[in-house]
Amino acid sequence: MMMTEYEPEEIARGEARLRWARERMPVLAAVRERLKKSGALKGAKIGMALHTEAKTGVLALTLREAGADISLTSCNPLSTDPCVAAALDAKCDIACHAKKGQTNQEYYKSLNKVIDFSPDYVIDDGADLIFMLHTKRKEKLSKVKGANEETTTGIVRLKAMAAEGALKFPVISINGADMKHLFDNRYGTGQSTFDGIMSSTNLLIAGRKFVVAGYGWCGRGIAMRARGMGARVVVTEIDPVKAVEARLDGFDIMQMADAAKGADFIVTATGCKDVIRKEHLKIINDKCVMANAGHFDNEISKPDLEAMSKSTRTARENTTEYSLKNGKKVYLLADGRLVNLAAGQGHPVEIMDMSFALQALGVEYLAKNYEEMDAKVHEIPKELDTWVARAALKSMEVEIDRLTKEQEKYLNEWREGT
Amino acid sequence: MMMTEYEPEEIARGEARLRWARERMPVLAAVRERLKKSGALKGAKIGMALHTEAKTGVLALTLREAGADISLTSCNPLSTDPCVAAALDAKCDIACHAKKGQTNQEYYKSLNKVIDFSPDYVIDDGADLIFMLHTKRKEKLSKVKGANEETTTGIVRLKAMAAEGALKFPVISINGADMKHLFDNRYGTGQSTFDGIMSSTNLLIAGRKFVVAGYGWCGRGIAMRARGMGARVVVTEIDPVKAVEARLDGFDIMQMADAAKGADFIVTATGCKDVIRKEHLKIINDKCVMANAGHFDNEISKPDLEAMSKSTRTARENTTEYSLKNGKKVYLLADGRLVNLAAGQGHPVEIMDMSFALQALGVEYLAKNYEEMDAKVHEIPKELDTWVARAALKSMEVEIDRLTKEQEKYLNEWREGT
Amino acid sequence: MMMTEYEPEEIARGEARLRWARERMPVLAAVRERLKKSGALKGAKIGMALHTEAKTGVLALTLREAGADISLTSCNPLSTDPCVAAALDAKCDIACHAKKGQTNQEYYKSLNKVIDFSPDYVIDDGADLIFMLHTKRKEKLSKVKGANEETTTGIVRLKAMAAEGALKFPVISINGADMKHLFDNRYGTGQSTFDGIMSSTNLLIAGRKFVVAGYGWCGRGIAMRARGMGARVVVTEIDPVKAVEARLDGFDIMQMADAAKGADFIVTATGCKDVIRKEHLKIINDKCVMANAGHFDNEISKPDLEAMSKSTRTARENTTEYSLKNGKKVYLLADGRLVNLAAGQGHPVEIMDMSFALQALGVEYLAKNYEEMDAKVHEIPKELDTWVARAALKSMEVEIDRLTKEQEKYLNEWREGT
Amino acid sequence: MMMTEYEPEEIARGEARLRWARERMPVLAAVRERLKKSGALKGAKIGMALHTEAKTGVLALTLREAGADISLTSCNPLSTDPCVAAALDAKCDIACHAKKGQTNQEYYKSLNKVIDFSPDYVIDDGADLIFMLHTKRKEKLSKVKGANEETTTGIVRLKAMAAEGALKFPVISINGADMKHLFDNRYGTGQSTFDGIMSSTNLLIAGRKFVVAGYGWCGRGIAMRARGMGARVVVTEIDPVKAVEARLDGFDIMQMADAAKGADFIVTATGCKDVIRKEHLKIINDKCVMANAGHFDNEISKPDLEAMSKSTRTARENTTEYSLKNGKKVYLLADGRLVNLAAGQGHPVEIMDMSFALQALGVEYLAKNYEEMDAKVHEIPKELDTWVARAALKSMEVEIDRLTKEQEKYLNEWREGT
Repeated sequence: MMMTEYEPEEIARGEARLRWARERMPVLAAVRERLKKSGALKGAKIGMALHTEAKTGVLALTLREAGADISLTSCNPLSTDPCVAAALDAKCDIACHAKKGQTNQEYYKSLNKVIDFSPDYVIDDGADLIFMLHTKRKEKLSKVKGANEETTTGIVRLKAMAAEGALKFPVISINGADMKHLFDNRYGTGQSTFDGIMSSTNLLIAGRKFVVAGYGWCGRGIAMRARGMGARVVVTEIDPVKAVEARLDGFDIMQMADAAKGADFIVTATGCKDVIRKEHLKIINDKCVMANAGHFDNEISKPDLEAMSKSTRTARENTTEYSLKNGKKVYLLADGRLVNLAAGQGHPVEIMDMSFALQALGVEYLAKNYEEMDAKVHEIPKELDTWVARAALKSMEVEIDRLTKEQEKYLNEWREGT
Repeated sequence: MMMTEYEPEEIARGEARLRWARERMPVLAAVRERLKKSGALKGAKIGMALHTEAKTGVLALTLREAGADISLTSCNPLSTDPCVAAALDAKCDIACHAKKGQTNQEYYKSLNKVIDFSPDYVIDDGADLIFMLHTKRKEKLSKVKGANEETTTGIVRLKAMAAEGALKFPVISINGADMKHLFDNRYGTGQSTFDGIMSSTNLLIAGRKFVVAGYGWCGRGIAMRARGMGARVVVTEIDPVKAVEARLDGFDIMQMADAAKGADFIVTATGCKDVIRKEHLKIINDKCVMANAGHFDNEISKPDLEAMSKSTRTARENTTEYSLKNGKKVYLLADGRLVNLAAGQGHPVEIMDMSFALQALGVEYLAKNYEEMDAKVHEIPKELDTWVARAALKSMEVEIDRLTKEQEKYLNEWREGT
Repeated sequence: MMMTEYEPEEIARGEARLRWARERMPVLAAVRERLKKSGALKGAKIGMALHTEAKTGVLALTLREAGADISLTSCNPLSTDPCVAAALDAKCDIACHAKKGQTNQEYYKSLNKVIDFSPDYVIDDGADLIFMLHTKRKEKLSKVKGANEETTTGIVRLKAMAAEGALKFPVISINGADMKHLFDNRYGTGQSTFDGIMSSTNLLIAGRKFVVAGYGWCGRGIAMRARGMGARVVVTEIDPVKAVEARLDGFDIMQMADAAKGADFIVTATGCKDVIRKEHLKIINDKCVMANAGHFDNEISKPDLEAMSKSTRTARENTTEYSLKNGKKVYLLADGRLVNLAAGQGHPVEIMDMSFALQALGVEYLAKNYEEMDAKVHEIPKELDTWVARAALKSMEVEIDRLTKEQEKYLNEWREGT
Repeated sequence: MMMTEYEPEEIARGEARLRWARERMPVLAAVRERLKKSGALKGAKIGMALHTEAKTGVLALTLREAGADISLTSCNPLSTDPCVAAALDAKCDIACHAKKGQTNQEYYKSLNKVIDFSPDYVIDDGADLIFMLHTKRKEKLSKVKGANEETTTGIVRLKAMAAEGALKFPVISINGADMKHLFDNRYGTGQSTFDGIMSSTNLLIAGRKFVVAGYGWCGRGIAMRARGMGARVVVTEIDPVKAVEARLDGFDIMQMADAAKGADFIVTATGCKDVIRKEHLKIINDKCVMANAGHFDNEISKPDLEAMSKSTRTARENTTEYSLKNGKKVYLLADGRLVNLAAGQGHPVEIMDMSFALQALGVEYLAKNYEEMDAKVHEIPKELDTWVARAALKSMEVEIDRLTKEQEKYLNEWREGT
């Protein structure tokens, strides 16, 4: 299946990373047993577009071991771990088309290869693969029985598609699961964003003015960890309820036009574009470091940055210096792509264990139920969410209380009051 | 309207407290202007059962000044501020039947007086008033056009009623509003629980083992503040998703049978009964302090406590010492009733400003729409939630970002990807 | 010994408070056993000026039970708990001259009574008693063998005295002990300041701009707890090292002239006077709440406040409203005196257990060593500090590691390197 | 001066890193101006043994530009950044003997080269260089006028030497400066330890049991940041005062024999050896990750680890897997050497800006005063500490309050009381 020549050392490193991750993903291990037993995915063809690194590899292996055929590529031109890709492709019987540091053209070429595979099920992250199936690759559309979508950004796109009647197969919102967005977006993004920033800059977080754009699940994870590292955190929001919440969580809340002044770091996590644009770039501090933790690389406007700069250079690995015409130098990490993946190692293993357990259970659910499912965005069933939560607690060796019979009765009863 | 003799000093103190609160409730002030302008509540008869203290008084005054007639009592035998009750009754043209330290019999007598008043609208907290209207006082039921319910516990009861077809008028879930449960339950209960505990005990929180039963909005507020005061916090839960969440928020999570061992404080906020019962009382530490922050006083089983004690005495104001037969002494604050209200001063003023703005807007909404509303639990319209959030931000002099046109368009568009 | 008539109920309440505190002061209980055994204080006359409330009462009882005669008054006109004073005076064989709410004249009268008693040893807090002995009451000076001083403020005064050669007996700096200032000033003041503020105002801390003047041990305790309650905390300092420290702890640091703008709360803990003065009062926010947690009531300039006001009134218990001539209303808690004592219940019991254990051990040390001690400020011996720490750990049932012999040897050895 | 062949790309990368650091070290820039002006170091020969990476390079360049001749090597076999070493050696007129990944023999060889240079002043970290001068290289001892020592561990060794009369020149304790140990040890180690751990493992910190051995300045920095990342933190200590402090900071405190059970991470920062040894290794969890943040690599006993293992392998970069004979696998990061340097990028730039400003000022002070200084460990003068604090505040554009004349007078006055 291997189409590329890999260095043996690269493969060996990838295998070690896969092993490290696999040994630390007990929930996915439990799913693996479940799928092997149920046989629901035997012979299924699954096309995957996910950040291709060790944890994703363990998901792909899980599906493979459950009997599915896999074609995998990355959902982002910069987020591939080439060693893991090599090991999957060369040693694991998985067709892996992801490469590190792709151009946009190469990126789309890899997506096309996954579509060429004619998948029954699609696992997507950001909905690029699903979108291509609905536009340039319509000939493969009818084969697809259903898809999972991993991220907020993708769900927004898919709901817009569904609202226009453009969506042609059922999609499960993995992101909608509590065990995904409460954890992956918050604790996952929270921690890994700092892995990316600290690795790239070696700069102090404590005492710095750290601006977080967006107080959704990702944004509050980042804000929480920025505070945990000692930063003076400022939050920007467009939703008044979230704004009050950020304020009562003890953060300063202001418009970006004010927040950007004097900022040492600005991190975006909004799912919207042009959050940092010309008007903000005009006023930001000399030496300000900017990074994006949202899905697409358009939250910080690179066109505006480039238009305002007289030159750019690589200041450190993953760190581009823009020398602005006004004499200031500002820095963009990982080319504005997901800083935790493109400059770090992605979410911690244990977080992806839960998210990817949901992915695998989601495909199993599609396989069993796709015929009854409308072509729209579906929430993942609550019992799968709970299944994952119980498996996660078990892996932590935690036992929690259960209601007594009297308590259950009481909670269903409305006659008992003061 | 005054049926009771009050001490002039009591009235004066109540007036001062009302004034203090009123000056610090800018959102409710904005609602007041809105209601005066709309005239929607002119002549309406409103029966209220809410913890009768200064902030509640300002809500009652708001409705009164909007043209409504008010009959008010407390929703809890121990939560009345007698000075405020006196001032409302004697000076503010509001029929106030709340008294401090009622027996259960007196409590129900006061509720009956509110029902005698034949209200058009009911504002309830815990649903005792609504329940009486549906059982012992059915003759007044037909007059009621709709109600608001303040609290999680009440909503649980009312949904159970509605599920059985027993609910006879529409009820708005104030608790369901983001601007209520995200704030009142979390930051309100969080802070005021410590006001109650610290006032009652003068004990150190830092370094103590502090057990919080329940990781709902109230429980996480308490856990967050307990940590903020330096405690070593342990959480108990029955919901596995919330349990994982508590754990990843850095709390120990265990069964109460383990958590109770060595606990210095145990606070319940579950909405369920018998959370602390015989089996736990057998193993708790000498000198353990227990308090309840849930709606009803049955979360810590007083029957079990009494059965296991050889004697009780008042150790300090609001603090009952139980001398257990096993030789230990344990302490129950505020007789197991809401510790923040019965031993403290209730939620901070600014929190109730938002919650009560929603109450007033809820009654206005009922007055305008009750004819189209089914006899079930309704969520409060999102735009009222947003209205309150915007008013709160304005009172804090905070301005937040708004989407540009390009951004709005982008968010409604699904064709733009990587 | 009782010179005053007390209400029986007052005495009973005081006895209950003394009992509550005593049962929660295990370190002082261990000191009590030690002193009874050593007999070092048998027959000694001890004059005490300490905030007279329950924990102080337990210290006085400890010394009394060790055989000393005690004459006690408060070290602050507003910090006395009258019930405890009554119980001590009427039932405990302790001459207690402290009264609640004294004028400055009455305050000094009470201090004089303690001096009339001709003490061998003095326990002081703020050094007013020691100062009087060196100025107006020199006739009693020669009798005094030594003293303890409790607080930073007092130590600053005494060192200034010693530097001028004016100090005539040895003084032990209790404040200098790690087990005092690391705990009492930080965790004690931190928690009890919020007890005082929340009781007095019922205002929300979360999201508010909370200014702490001073980042010494007290100030950092307050700042830490303000953050723990969700405030947006700003710190002011005059020491550049502490200023950098506050900043890297994540606090905004600025000059008071900037910090005061828009502040919701300002709390002083500097040991200096006029920290809030005319220039700051001119710019503070309408409704700003001010409180002092430093020893003397001159940190917030009351003369300036009064000169700038057209009227004052009691807005709530312990809360004075100043109507400024510029139309704003601002609030001073507890008349600018220690807010945790004058508007709260003072430090948590367990904190004072450690501080007062040091006081008792300090007097024992004086009794054994005063003849060899110079008339200057002495640090308390390290082994007494450690004794208290070990007793505190024992009371928490905590066991800690001990060095192995190899480790001890290693730490004394300089030859082992890389 | 260059003795080695370097790759041009390696040199270029080193130059970029030096430039990045240099642009972010404003305090050291201010020292540079001061030294150039004073000329105090012109022609001085300075031998340096410091972790050789970008920030150290900027210190070396500072001293070079002030006119000194420099011979530099690393103070740890694993902590060198080879690109920076190459750039310094090839392009910056600094003799740099540091190499990445030295054996102990190579390490000592490099130290010897620095001694061969016959330095007037020594800058040491851990005291290996100073120790060699006093033992195997005594012939160069008389030439040395004085030294700086950077770290707690080194100071402990040097004080032991001085106590035995073995120390032959004055040494300034840089570590003793507030602007060093309060910041470098706490915020520097705190942050960079997590840089090292997260880079090496990609594991989740939130919710994990994270044991910190030692609650000195380093340990409390690590504990603070572990909590900030959401861990459940347990602290071990041998000092009872620090143990109570850790407890009141909200951490569990216990003996290592208990703490190690169920630990997900154990990090040592004690300055002592064998903190994790056979008895602890017997009981630690499968998959436990261990790292050291103390100066020497003997805090976690590698001999014990090896004796108990049947095999070892490299699980990931900087991560060694030990397969214990009892069937568990445990992991040691960075071979037990300083995890923040050997597996991360060392302290954040801004922290080292302050520490190394003190180093440069310390050498200047030695140059001016060595003749009057005894052969012992000297604290750095308070005014240099304050100088650095003021320069740091200036670089942050922070202005702080200054005492008014009245306040200054008040603080020197002891007559003003209640």
